[in-house]
Amino acid sequence: IVSRSVEGPIHRYTLAESRLRTHRLAHALGKLGVELGDRVGTIAWNTHRHVELYFAVSGMGAVCHTMNPRLHPTQLAYIVDHAQDKVIFVDLTFVPLVEAVWDALKNVETVVVMTDREHMPSTRLPVLCYEELLDAESEEFAWPTFDENTASSLCYTSGTTGNPKGVLYSHRSTVLHTFAMALPTVLSANERETILPVVPMFHVNAWGIPYVTAMTGMKLVMPGPGLDGTSLTELMNAETVTIAAGVPTIWLGLLDHWREHKISVPSMHTVVIGGSAPNRSMIDAFQSDFGIEVLHAWGMTEMSPIGTACRLKPSMLDASENERHTFQLKQGRAVFGVEMKIVDEDGSELPHDGKAFGELKVRGPWVCSSYFNVEKSDAHDADGWFATGDVVTIDPDGYVNITDRSKDVIKSGGECPDIAQAAVIGVPDEKWTERPLLIVVPKKDCQIKSEQVLEFFDGKVAKWWVPDNVIVVDTLPLGATGKVQKIKLREQYATK
Amino acid sequence: IVSRSVEGPIHRYTLAESRLRTHRLAHALGKLGVELGDRVGTIAWNTHRHVELYFAVSGMGAVCHTMNPRLHPTQLAYIVDHAQDKVIFVDLTFVPLVEAVWDALKNVETVVVMTDREHMPSTRLPVLCYEELLDAESEEFAWPTFDENTASSLCYTSGTTGNPKGVLYSHRSTVLHTFAMALPTVLSANERETILPVVPMFHVNAWGIPYVTAMTGMKLVMPGPGLDGTSLTELMNAETVTIAAGVPTIWLGLLDHWREHKISVPSMHTVVIGGSAPNRSMIDAFQSDFGIEVLHAWGMTEMSPIGTACRLKPSMLDASENERHTFQLKQGRAVFGVEMKIVDEDGSELPHDGKAFGELKVRGPWVCSSYFNVEKSDAHDADGWFATGDVVTIDPDGYVNITDRSKDVIKSGGECPDIAQAAVIGVPDEKWTERPLLIVVPKKDCQIKSEQVLEFFDGKVAKWWVPDNVIVVDTLPLGATGKVQKIKLREQYATK
Repeated sequence: IVSRSVEGPIHRYTLAESRLRTHRLAHALGKLGVELGDRVGTIAWNTHRHVELYFAVSGMGAVCHTMNPRLHPTQLAYIVDHAQDKVIFVDLTFVPLVEAVWDALKNVETVVVMTDREHMPSTRLPVLCYEELLDAESEEFAWPTFDENTASSLCYTSGTTGNPKGVLYSHRSTVLHTFAMALPTVLSANERETILPVVPMFHVNAWGIPYVTAMTGMKLVMPGPGLDGTSLTELMNAETVTIAAGVPTIWLGLLDHWREHKISVPSMHTVVIGGSAPNRSMIDAFQSDFGIEVLHAWGMTEMSPIGTACRLKPSMLDASENERHTFQLKQGRAVFGVEMKIVDEDGSELPHDGKAFGELKVRGPWVCSSYFNVEKSDAHDADGWFATGDVVTIDPDGYVNITDRSKDVIKSGGECPDIAQAAVIGVPDEKWTERPLLIVVPKKDCQIKSEQVLEFFDGKVAKWWVPDNVIVVDTLPLGATGKVQKIKLREQYATK
Repeated sequence: IVSRSVEGPIHRYTLAESRLRTHRLAHALGKLGVELGDRVGTIAWNTHRHVELYFAVSGMGAVCHTMNPRLHPTQLAYIVDHAQDKVIFVDLTFVPLVEAVWDALKNVETVVVMTDREHMPSTRLPVLCYEELLDAESEEFAWPTFDENTASSLCYTSGTTGNPKGVLYSHRSTVLHTFAMALPTVLSANERETILPVVPMFHVNAWGIPYVTAMTGMKLVMPGPGLDGTSLTELMNAETVTIAAGVPTIWLGLLDHWREHKISVPSMHTVVIGGSAPNRSMIDAFQSDFGIEVLHAWGMTEMSPIGTACRLKPSMLDASENERHTFQLKQGRAVFGVEMKIVDEDGSELPHDGKAFGELKVRGPWVCSSYFNVEKSDAHDADGWFATGDVVTIDPDGYVNITDRSKDVIKSGGECPDIAQAAVIGVPDEKWTERPLLIVVPKKDCQIKSEQVLEFFDGKVAKWWVPDNVIVVDTLPLGATGKVQKIKLREQYATK
């Protein structure tokens, strides 16, 4: 495990050494009063210390609750409070963030700063020093045994409606998900490979990659806070990274950096792209210009996250470059363990013919069954099917193609008094691949302007949640059951 | 799935087509009275029909009980009776075998011959025709759901003491085992590969390979009854097999055939060798003469079977050919999911230093917990550890090296009246890699000769169970706890 630390230097150790520090950390957690089932929060970059927290917290039977530091402070406070985190671990970078929300946190007893004594900040928070905690403990620890369905980690999904909802992962779901991720048809994880997850550890456990490396002995390279083109490229080349995983936005920046400085990462053979779909020019750039195979994958926070991976079937290998790259725009086939079906608005199952589109429903051992600590917590129906909110086609070979999202209707419940109906669609964006466009219908006899609507968001949600633009219309196109027909909206507005 | 049929022709179909026939078969099983938990026996080669039985029998909640047709008829009858098989499915080849033991089978209601109407044999058995059964049924079948710990298949281990014991596999253990087998560090199963299991489907589910191909879409090539060099080589080349799996004896014959006819299988890149250890000249032949990588694996019937796989760690890749080939004589490292420890005669744990040797104990989700339908059925101790009977070292990197077997002492319980003590050790054999050598201590005042002892086996066990030679000695070397010190016996007799 090689990690760019928040303090600056590169940290490097073996899995065996990591294990011993995990033992120390588990002792320390126990002394902080953490018990089976307690939530332990983290606000941290991808570093070796965060990996230690994953294994120590879950291994001792507590729940590792990773938090997105980019959330609006009020949402962050909501999440810490809702999860009832007893202890939170924060990177140096995020101490000011915790200071800002501290007065709103009722349950947190201890804040541990993930650094050594030398780098401890001065703060009004009741802080402890991570390295001091570990130094005081023994390297020997006997992991407790408990039911495999015990929760191991927790990630809140910002969703699209209401408050963030906590998705719990169990030891069972995590092990099964890790097996699936490691398969040759997904990451093909083995100890001859070196993987760098740019995808954050606070985002669905970095797609489970820290678990995959522990299962398979694959070398893990962690970028810490260095997510710019220079830092990433330097680290990738220094550690001969062969696989990197992240969202399109990161890759757009990296590709620009490579082109500008006429550099690349010759050791890299695969880039995993998820979170949102890569566009055709990104696939072309990686594969044709840099000789790096794109693995387009799709999943959700509620799916741990893997759902599909787009590995070409053998018959596609002889296709033209153009055909292959176009095909890779699809989200791919269900990984083993995930069942899929598409349904129309009445819930009737639709054929997998590559033409019929409907909402994608998924089922499987790492699909979330209920949300944490909420009423009406059921995430799936009586038969175990989880509605993804994605409108897709599935072709006869099982490849999923997302055509739209059915869930991104904002049910604002009258928060904005002049708006009767609203819908959001994704529109192509050069930098972010896709950005939200808000389409609103004013209430009868109301007049609203775009600016008014945008102002309404100020201070309520994270900036990147705010639509770039608002279009005011008279009516939204509705389907038979009264749902907004997003496809018609996209046809009309998304291509402009 | 491509299969050399017992009738002769090559049969070929897709997994999707196989699935539909599996549905038909599940209906047919129901009509034959097979219910949840019932055992359904098979005495059959590796063919597509046997694959259909695996999935139809287990899928409907019954237990697929595969039987070794090479067992002595009295043992076969014992097993059918002990398992209480309700229906048995037999290949044409084995109809005479079933006829021979028919009068001893009390529970079998139906015998299904795995062929079409045209090839049905004339027999006094109450037989049905496999293809007729399927023709009569629908392609639509709704698989029932049941607890994941439901038994899915059953394999008797001939063991070394007493009657054969039935090892049950569950749906849960099978899925987990399949994940582990498919990993890049084991089979690296994916749809670009083509695998031919020579290892029989009656031997620990052909090491789980039919499940792995179903999980991953890897092409499955089944040799049927054609296990000779000509048949195997023809099929391998016709189907561009890339991976083949079997025991050393098969590979010895195949290598001889290739050398004699100056042929080989250029598409093949990996040969999986298990069941017993390959010797150095086999590893040299495959890797140096034919460019086929040897994957030495180890397991047991009680382990579903995978325990270890000997993939070279990255640091070994730069070693000399000689060093690499020698290293591959080791059984390899535990696959993810299997825990291992070595203990001395007092049960104390020994270091993993590559020097200390003791009995290997294993634990994990696909390690047998109890034997089927016997008193004192516990297969493992209170902490879940299963004693393998193998005496091994484990090096600091986790590579297991079997030095001896502790369990192959024949506890004949006074069956042979003139023998006080006996032990069997493996001695190197050119054809079979290893053959048993029996070492006996006569009872006080008894005189015995080798020939008398060998005659004693006549008609009691399968011929290949009978030792090639018997040595009569005055005493066996005993350890502190009274166990025979097999290592001393090997030093003295095995190298001669």
